Amino acid sequence: MKVGIVGATGYGGVELYRILSKHPHVDECILYSSSEVDVPYINSFPHLNELSDHKLKNIDVEEMKNNVDVLFLATPPGVSRNLSPQFIESNVKIIDLSGDLRLKKKSEYEAWYKRPCVDESVLEKAVYGLSELNKAEIEKAKLLANPGCFPTATILGLAPVVKQKLVNEQSIIVDAKTGVSGAGRNASQATHYSEINENVKIYKVHEHQHIPEVEQALHVLNNAVTCISFHTHLMPMTRGIMATIYASLTDSYSTEALLDVYKSFYEHSPFVRIRNKNEFPSTKEVYGSNFCDIGLKVDERTNRVTIVSVIDNLMKGAAGQAVQNFNIMNGFEETTGLYFAPIYP
Amino acid sequence: MKVGIVGATGYGGVELYRILSKHPHVDECILYSSSEVDVPYINSFPHLNELSDHKLKNIDVEEMKNNVDVLFLATPPGVSRNLSPQFIESNVKIIDLSGDLRLKKKSEYEAWYKRPCVDESVLEKAVYGLSELNKAEIEKAKLLANPGCFPTATILGLAPVVKQKLVNEQSIIVDAKTGVSGAGRNASQATHYSEINENVKIYKVHEHQHIPEVEQALHVLNNAVTCISFHTHLMPMTRGIMATIYASLTDSYSTEALLDVYKSFYEHSPFVRIRNKNEFPSTKEVYGSNFCDIGLKVDERTNRVTIVSVIDNLMKGAAGQAVQNFNIMNGFEETTGLYFAPIYP
Amino acid sequence: MKVGIVGATGYGGVELYRILSKHPHVDECILYSSSEVDVPYINSFPHLNELSDHKLKNIDVEEMKNNVDVLFLATPPGVSRNLSPQFIESNVKIIDLSGDLRLKKKSEYEAWYKRPCVDESVLEKAVYGLSELNKAEIEKAKLLANPGCFPTATILGLAPVVKQKLVNEQSIIVDAKTGVSGAGRNASQATHYSEINENVKIYKVHEHQHIPEVEQALHVLNNAVTCISFHTHLMPMTRGIMATIYASLTDSYSTEALLDVYKSFYEHSPFVRIRNKNEFPSTKEVYGSNFCDIGLKVDERTNRVTIVSVIDNLMKGAAGQAVQNFNIMNGFEETTGLYFAPIYP
Amino acid sequence: MKVGIVGATGYGGVELYRILSKHPHVDECILYSSSEVDVPYINSFPHLNELSDHKLKNIDVEEMKNNVDVLFLATPPGVSRNLSPQFIESNVKIIDLSGDLRLKKKSEYEAWYKRPCVDESVLEKAVYGLSELNKAEIEKAKLLANPGCFPTATILGLAPVVKQKLVNEQSIIVDAKTGVSGAGRNASQATHYSEINENVKIYKVHEHQHIPEVEQALHVLNNAVTCISFHTHLMPMTRGIMATIYASLTDSYSTEALLDVYKSFYEHSPFVRIRNKNEFPSTKEVYGSNFCDIGLKVDERTNRVTIVSVIDNLMKGAAGQAVQNFNIMNGFEETTGLYFAPIYP
Repeated sequence: MKVGIVGATGYGGVELYRILSKHPHVDECILYSSSEVDVPYINSFPHLNELSDHKLKNIDVEEMKNNVDVLFLATPPGVSRNLSPQFIESNVKIIDLSGDLRLKKKSEYEAWYKRPCVDESVLEKAVYGLSELNKAEIEKAKLLANPGCFPTATILGLAPVVKQKLVNEQSIIVDAKTGVSGAGRNASQATHYSEINENVKIYKVHEHQHIPEVEQALHVLNNAVTCISFHTHLMPMTRGIMATIYASLTDSYSTEALLDVYKSFYEHSPFVRIRNKNEFPSTKEVYGSNFCDIGLKVDERTNRVTIVSVIDNLMKGAAGQAVQNFNIMNGFEETTGLYFAPIYP
Repeated sequence: MKVGIVGATGYGGVELYRILSKHPHVDECILYSSSEVDVPYINSFPHLNELSDHKLKNIDVEEMKNNVDVLFLATPPGVSRNLSPQFIESNVKIIDLSGDLRLKKKSEYEAWYKRPCVDESVLEKAVYGLSELNKAEIEKAKLLANPGCFPTATILGLAPVVKQKLVNEQSIIVDAKTGVSGAGRNASQATHYSEINENVKIYKVHEHQHIPEVEQALHVLNNAVTCISFHTHLMPMTRGIMATIYASLTDSYSTEALLDVYKSFYEHSPFVRIRNKNEFPSTKEVYGSNFCDIGLKVDERTNRVTIVSVIDNLMKGAAGQAVQNFNIMNGFEETTGLYFAPIYP
Repeated sequence: MKVGIVGATGYGGVELYRILSKHPHVDECILYSSSEVDVPYINSFPHLNELSDHKLKNIDVEEMKNNVDVLFLATPPGVSRNLSPQFIESNVKIIDLSGDLRLKKKSEYEAWYKRPCVDESVLEKAVYGLSELNKAEIEKAKLLANPGCFPTATILGLAPVVKQKLVNEQSIIVDAKTGVSGAGRNASQATHYSEINENVKIYKVHEHQHIPEVEQALHVLNNAVTCISFHTHLMPMTRGIMATIYASLTDSYSTEALLDVYKSFYEHSPFVRIRNKNEFPSTKEVYGSNFCDIGLKVDERTNRVTIVSVIDNLMKGAAGQAVQNFNIMNGFEETTGLYFAPIYP
Repeated sequence: MKVGIVGATGYGGVELYRILSKHPHVDECILYSSSEVDVPYINSFPHLNELSDHKLKNIDVEEMKNNVDVLFLATPPGVSRNLSPQFIESNVKIIDLSGDLRLKKKSEYEAWYKRPCVDESVLEKAVYGLSELNKAEIEKAKLLANPGCFPTATILGLAPVVKQKLVNEQSIIVDAKTGVSGAGRNASQATHYSEINENVKIYKVHEHQHIPEVEQALHVLNNAVTCISFHTHLMPMTRGIMATIYASLTDSYSTEALLDVYKSFYEHSPFVRIRNKNEFPSTKEVYGSNFCDIGLKVDERTNRVTIVSVIDNLMKGAAGQAVQNFNIMNGFEETTGLYFAPIYP
């Protein structure tokens, strides 16, 4: 297969390249950029010296239709809104890593993203690609909305208890912590080294655009979920997300019982690893890999459960999950080209 | 005055030394250590070259009674239990930075600390030294239990709304994040650089010994508070604590109204700084200083408030607050020797 | 005295403010900025909440002449070139932290800085302010060129052996390592967190504008010094410079003998601390302080000496030395407002 | 093939496992540990959950002889000295990642390592495994001494100019910078997070045990090399080594001419990447990969060349090079299982 990556000069794009350039079913990667054209890819990423002789190509829809089987959009918000619709009648499958196609309601997108949304007719066609929860639909998808990094960690952490109504749906609070690479490669004072190092910051309080995405996905699992509390913190590290999730139990369940629910729920999900009792994953334990690791513990004093879910934001939170969906969409084994160990330490 | 520091070779001890050696009312610091005796202090801390010619002294209660007016115990749990009672009948005032004297119930200490507790008669004499909340008692204290780092950030963050019953007392959830220096100077695999860097970990889930301390202090403010959820995470940084606090409001209050409550509550507290609407403190904004900075925001969708409280764990969370209490106990201006700016960046 | 700080919104500027706002001989700080005017200083630096009620003022030479006794220029290259000459006939003393006035030859400035230089007549009036080496001239200075961060660490590390001709003047190689704050507060991809963290980079190889500054200062001490090798590396940390210096000895000297030379050379220099044999300073041992710590060791196998010199780039490498010079220029004790301990850890 | 890893609970061991568990010619990995026996490997490394069901086995030479084709020793100094000789008459090939077999002279080992050395008869049998320089011997090796991390970066950086006598052999100075993982997984105060973060330290000045290893290898290339200056610095990062190398040129060569020498010298070395003029590698550009990237530049002013050589210390500096040698020793393509991209950012 021939795949195209739009936004190849970003962190999501280069992570896609790392995986797809070794993928056994990918014959060719074509790299597109709006900012740099006809220059060698290694100018942007010298770590790929001798591993890539690509030149970045201009974004040209007709050329893409002729040359590409699957197109990955690793682009900032707003790009996919314009680009995706042009491929709907074509044979090119689209995997969009941006947030443009994830929400089902145009008004919600516009309220949270504060920018115009694509037509709702396009949103209807987009399949939400949380690989573990939506596999049957993903298999048939032609237009795939790859989930956000925070939603992936959060929804996977909550799905079993939400679906099985083991937690009070109004009680959910998520305290998410992320590395800085999620903010992309463009320099800003907010991601300036001297401002981030030795520092923890909260940001977009009650305003993060991933809030409605999480709520929408949980609502599909259990329509009693409406509003959650969800907060994001910037950590002094490059990669990794931890979602620490708090919820009140609807009855008194033991930690063991809940762990069994999770193990059973994710029995056929090769990238979700449930930890044993009294073990919790740290972000580094999934570094560079496509795994989502989950640990949990009931607090009998408060009858709340604490769930810890970690991913590598550039992998399971972006490029890795996109390739997982690529595998599912094309009938390949879900783990193809993706089942490798985290890098540690 | 002559002050003694027991545990001078630890991080809390050396931070005490940094402040007390410049304090206008301190004539002499005497440094004690159980591990190193008669060796120059600068062997432990070369950054103090030419700033200290102290030799570490053996712990000798009689000698201390003769030479010291105020004794700071910056020691691991268990030390103060043995040492503090020996000074009760003496003229030496004790400021204990360990957790040994903070809880009022012996059984609670033994359940959470998993070690024997001092006699309850000693606990009764100890004054809990959260400077902002307990000033009148601190003024008269001879035996002071300096609060823990997490409790300081958490209690200061919650006190106004808990005392004034603006939040549901059963709804409180605290997600705390700390730098590694809180774990002290002794090497362990848990604080090994290669295990901490580029990593976020949760630890002591539902078992942290600071939980009963927070609950006890909140209960004093509002006896409807019994159990809270409280979690601690290790961040890849050296100093700083952020407590992100979630609670349901008992009525619909605006962010502005709550900020006014906080500003008024802390009007006479020089080390608590309340941020303006839509501003949240980051940990680095108090680095090296004795400030506790607080920001908050109401989420109308869930009718919860999010409160962010940050401190430097070695300053307001340990040595700084200890000196603040030293000032109050001795009738000095509360800010003496302590009112300096954070170091930034 | 009334002091002005131009470039108050930069890292050098805010470090000047940290020191000068507590300086016993400074009655008032006036803060100037070209980018932000009439806005509260705490908008730029929230860590100064309640510590500063300054508004940033526009740069207005006449106003400055009326209101300021000493003006610090903590500005990017090119600003002082225009600003400084306007004060030459005034009563305002200028302390310029930029590189604009450090080199004595206009052509050299233009070759290395790649921008136009001030008139050589102004350069002649400027006194090079390496406090330890040039005290007599600094006392009389009205226009002071504060040294660069790398030159400060390097020249202090080399001065004793260069002046006393104990090393081969052609053999000097300096491998310098710096934290990222030296690059200032403006965001760029080169200082983007995700590009710096877990990374060591060399930069400006053979082209760093501090090379001629070091050579010029060493040449004053010993005119046999002409060219040195000098290299700069960016470290994943915020503050700190280490200059590791290599030079061939002209004879066989012992480590002890050289340490004696250094201790004697810096006998009256309160901010230079010479380490004992087999002890080397690390950058954190001067963090936040004005100290320059130096260790050295002779390698008998190669008859070279290795000298390690560390400073905090924002303190002894910028703001701290500027205040040290301010003290000297105004007849105050050299250490006034500056003699405080490093913050550790 | 069946491979054994002794020291599997260390960082070198787990990196070997990451590569060998995916190596197409490895049928089975057997993991040995002296400290932990019969416990699951994932207890030591939870990031391998579901990727390993190994239990750690006791070190039993007879069992190994029966079950293992190639044995990797990723052990502290002193272990291989005892273990390796027992396999000399067996069919088991040994790849020793420790320093025990690298030096040819027993006296030199004992002088620098300060511990007893294996018999010189064993040293004679050991082949020094710097893959790029010694391929013919490695192909036939049964007992392989895998190079140290610093020597790998340094020797590869110097080999072309040393071999071709383009630099003055007495002028070589190496300033090496390393991440902390090179110190292994055992906790110590020297690698405690709070002591390392925001800090740069020099260590083992003139005493590093890698010095004679570098000198021995360079001497093989050019017997005029006897003594070099070599220094190691600890950086606040986990992985990565940069060797910044300084040497005087024997004639005036241009940067281009030297780059051509390097490109030609490493023409058939797939893991050495020579950068173009004015480009220098940073450590992160080889993170997690087996590459050694080299950049250089001539300084006409001093007629010295600056060479920058970077590796990932756990990969090309340890496990990666060990597998590269494993490939060569067993007649596999040199890049088998090893030719993957660095992880960035």
